[in-house]
Amino acid sequence: MATRILNAVASDVRFPTSRTLAGSDAMNRDPDYSAAYVILETDDPGGLSGHGLTFTTGRGTELCVEAVRLLANHVVGLTMEDIAADMAGFWRGLVGDSQLRWLGPEKGVVHLATAALVNAVWDLYARLERKPLWKLLVDMSSQQLVDCVDFRYIEDALKPAEAVAMLESQLPSRAEREVEMRRDGFPAYTTSAGWLGYSDARIKQLAEEAIGEGFTHLKLKVGFDAENDLRRARALRDALGPNGALMLDANQVWGVEEAISYMRPLAEVDPWWIEEPTSPDDVLGHRRIRDAIRPIKVATGEHVQNRIVFKQLLQAEAIDFCQIDSCRLGGVNEVIAVLLLASKFGVPVCPHAGGVGLCEYVRHLSIFDYIAVSASLENRVCEFVDHLHEHFVDPAVVAGGRYVCPTLPGYSAEMKRDSLSTYSFPGGPAWA
Amino acid sequence: MATRILNAVASDVRFPTSRTLAGSDAMNRDPDYSAAYVILETDDPGGLSGHGLTFTTGRGTELCVEAVRLLANHVVGLTMEDIAADMAGFWRGLVGDSQLRWLGPEKGVVHLATAALVNAVWDLYARLERKPLWKLLVDMSSQQLVDCVDFRYIEDALKPAEAVAMLESQLPSRAEREVEMRRDGFPAYTTSAGWLGYSDARIKQLAEEAIGEGFTHLKLKVGFDAENDLRRARALRDALGPNGALMLDANQVWGVEEAISYMRPLAEVDPWWIEEPTSPDDVLGHRRIRDAIRPIKVATGEHVQNRIVFKQLLQAEAIDFCQIDSCRLGGVNEVIAVLLLASKFGVPVCPHAGGVGLCEYVRHLSIFDYIAVSASLENRVCEFVDHLHEHFVDPAVVAGGRYVCPTLPGYSAEMKRDSLSTYSFPGGPAWA
Repeated sequence: MATRILNAVASDVRFPTSRTLAGSDAMNRDPDYSAAYVILETDDPGGLSGHGLTFTTGRGTELCVEAVRLLANHVVGLTMEDIAADMAGFWRGLVGDSQLRWLGPEKGVVHLATAALVNAVWDLYARLERKPLWKLLVDMSSQQLVDCVDFRYIEDALKPAEAVAMLESQLPSRAEREVEMRRDGFPAYTTSAGWLGYSDARIKQLAEEAIGEGFTHLKLKVGFDAENDLRRARALRDALGPNGALMLDANQVWGVEEAISYMRPLAEVDPWWIEEPTSPDDVLGHRRIRDAIRPIKVATGEHVQNRIVFKQLLQAEAIDFCQIDSCRLGGVNEVIAVLLLASKFGVPVCPHAGGVGLCEYVRHLSIFDYIAVSASLENRVCEFVDHLHEHFVDPAVVAGGRYVCPTLPGYSAEMKRDSLSTYSFPGGPAWA
Repeated sequence: MATRILNAVASDVRFPTSRTLAGSDAMNRDPDYSAAYVILETDDPGGLSGHGLTFTTGRGTELCVEAVRLLANHVVGLTMEDIAADMAGFWRGLVGDSQLRWLGPEKGVVHLATAALVNAVWDLYARLERKPLWKLLVDMSSQQLVDCVDFRYIEDALKPAEAVAMLESQLPSRAEREVEMRRDGFPAYTTSAGWLGYSDARIKQLAEEAIGEGFTHLKLKVGFDAENDLRRARALRDALGPNGALMLDANQVWGVEEAISYMRPLAEVDPWWIEEPTSPDDVLGHRRIRDAIRPIKVATGEHVQNRIVFKQLLQAEAIDFCQIDSCRLGGVNEVIAVLLLASKFGVPVCPHAGGVGLCEYVRHLSIFDYIAVSASLENRVCEFVDHLHEHFVDPAVVAGGRYVCPTLPGYSAEMKRDSLSTYSFPGGPAWA
């Protein structure tokens, strides 16, 4: 029997993280990690519902919550079977809403809200199929996966038939990689040591802890003060030794020429990548920076608004690493689009995570990417930040520097009931 | 004495235009022209206030209204003198809000709300100086104008000193062009005849009326059905004769390759430009289309989110016409940035207008552009749509196919009190 979506309940959940400076960087000085959270209630006799979220940083979460409510009519009343039968059409209906589209299109608040709803739909879908999301995707045929993607605006770079052929070529070895992922998990890196607001001593201590836990890739926030950055980067390099990978993250503080000159002294610490050296909108700027700072590589994506900008970053050979965000892209459908594009252009995907719920999401995406799309672990690491996982029913687990393969049905963003009420904004006790 | 901003009152105003299909195109089937409207109340003894708006198309206007409220703390409490003393810093404070920035940055709902607030500030500034906005700008020194611009992310294309030099070179002849604008006004074109929902007979009748009123440039909405488009375009070309300029507007319905093949048969009607042939985010796609369809020119901008994307459209030589939107760019400050960039790259600016309030705004911008920045009328026409002007205290007037130069103090977006209450959403009588 078909499962019908009866209601979309959206709520505003905020964690007062700005009180500790966890999450602080050159552009985001005082984030309160937050989510616009949505529950899709259904007529499933077992009471199954779909849970999804989009990540925000405090003020303005209410805008995403309200946008979810405005978009909900594209979801409520449908059955999961209706949606699954035409995933790309369903998705285009959401992003093409004839009045809300003006407010984007496919970017900003409305697109973040789209992500929350689409992620909730996929959570519901995976629960109904009793599979973790990555396994739901891995079990789809190449054609079914491609049918999830809206090719509008990307067909000049990748045609559906070409995408099917790419997936087919990896199909024979999918099962092997699935065994590997279940056994070993997916490589992670950590940003927990490198927040801008942390003292040198705290950075060093956290770095040593992380290395002790098996991490070989550590990331440092830079861009606020050149001298200070170099000192902190040296401390981290010392802790890592010459073989570990040190990544730097400027969170968009620089202009193009500024990025190039700022990176010159930092070359001393042999950074693997510089992340977000400038505006996420500046495709040509990223290309120019990439050309100028080789062999340091360029990564970006947590603020890249949609598949169209990723398409251009790839076409222009502007990035070495594609950092999809599971909640800024319009949910799983658009993530699949970008994974396919990145694979075609041979650029590794290293998802952005942290915040709240992002680590829960991205492990599914990286594992799916490896098993079905890229079939490679070379130069691939998935971000991990050890914050706020205690609020989730199926929290992200990292062991020995790798994301453990999730096994519970769904897309893992379900928050505990207690957390939802305690951190409800503005009424919850955490905000009293 | 300094004038202090005491309060920002935001409201949701919607006109039920979808009932007549005025404003219909291939992507926007049923717009209800709307505005997030803001009044900056001050302690001015004469009771002066600043009025600003951002244009929307119905659902979701409430998101912009709420975003204005969230941003208001960057404006309320300041004096107009504080703001005028550091215009670029004031603007960067708004777009750099440490938590709201996550929801963009500089795009979507929050940037539209930024535009409403910034436009209201400029309205207040011009009223205090007892000048129409264009004249306030024209009377500024080159350095003052450049000091209004946040050069973050555009300095690789245009340096402040270079912008000052550009403006200085036009300075000796500013006064002449001011006389000309006051006498003749600025050339306009009209889209009133060419909406997608209109019948052929209605298009022909409206085109003949427009030509009778002195228009030489007419625009037609295309992209829904190739055969139908060609028939309607021929009718418009017949009405215009061989010397009139016929513009086509696809409102983003095509992919890159689709745009190229769709434009082939339409070349028959000798279009001057094709507007929004694909996604506004696709800089490289616009370049490819432009290369493929010469001598037909490419125009875009009403959905271009900020100066960073315009910078790239210019750097990549992707457009022939730069169609700034006065409410999608972050208000007057960012408009000045794009006018300077376009001038440097030698691309004419032909602002997008229509909707509600946009015509009231853009005449100021085009007149300022001509007098102080571009100093040229070649290939420059400013959009005009004859809708909803009756709701404004200082409505746009077009005579003989030209925008009449406005003379009242301010930036002209003040709506009549009656209109504000009648069309207030959802409580106003128009929505009862």
